[in-house]
Amino acid sequence: MKPTHIEHIGIAVASLDEAIPFYEKVLGLECYAIEEVADQKVKTAFFKVGQTKIELLESTDPEGPIGKFVEKTGGGMHHMAFAVEDVQQALDDAAAEGCRLIDKAPRPGAEGLQIGFLHPKSTQRVLTEFCGKK
Amino acid sequence: MKPTHIEHIGIAVASLDEAIPFYEKVLGLECYAIEEVADQKVKTAFFKVGQTKIELLESTDPEGPIGKFVEKTGGGMHHMAFAVEDVQQALDDAAAEGCRLIDKAPRPGAEGLQIGFLHPKSTQRVLTEFCGKK
Repeated sequence: MKPTHIEHIGIAVASLDEAIPFYEKVLGLECYAIEEVADQKVKTAFFKVGQTKIELLESTDPEGPIGKFVEKTGGGMHHMAFAVEDVQQALDDAAAEGCRLIDKAPRPGAEGLQIGFLHPKSTQRVLTEFCGKK
Repeated sequence: MKPTHIEHIGIAVASLDEAIPFYEKVLGLECYAIEEVADQKVKTAFFKVGQTKIELLESTDPEGPIGKFVEKTGGGMHHMAFAVEDVQQALDDAAAEGCRLIDKAPRPGAEGLQIGFLHPKSTQRVLTEFCGKK
């Protein structure tokens, strides 16, 4: 299952209030949505540049995955999501190639899209996501 | 200066020989070029997905910037490059907004493109690059 484009780049930040002005004023992008994803324990801010979204992630809980990442690293690029037609098929194809998965089946992510993650141990430490188109 | 798209995502890897098969077999992308950039002390492998390139970076020198990054982190997402019409103008605009720069003027990067980096201290620790279109 070949992806069509980079759907988004997830960036963990300590504070959306500090990060949003950088993307708006320095890069000239527009924050078009802010959304809380309760089960991921994050608040997200979205920008679009060409085909790709920038998804800023601020933790709402120090024990959540982004909270731990920011505590350990100070923040930075967190994951990369590829747009695919069929997330289940993409996960199955990856597994068939010997890739370890975090998600064996799609689950709902931000913006109502289906998502599924590969395991960083199989991806040279890049947290890699497949993201559906609907 | 608003960027038009994500030109590339730079990913530091310990070994191109290990990483290239993942991008080819699991993600179905084609490695269309391998290039050594001597002054950056890296060997790069390029893939294209939609508007964006994936640029895998293997260090050719442990003392180079990618060598140090891989030693410290094990590798992973290293930088993000925005395509702009005019790199000098984009750098000047960023500086005018109070952004710290690594490059005050464009310099040549991979694939013969003009590039310039912002400083991670001004970008929430995301190494951010502007990349020209020619």
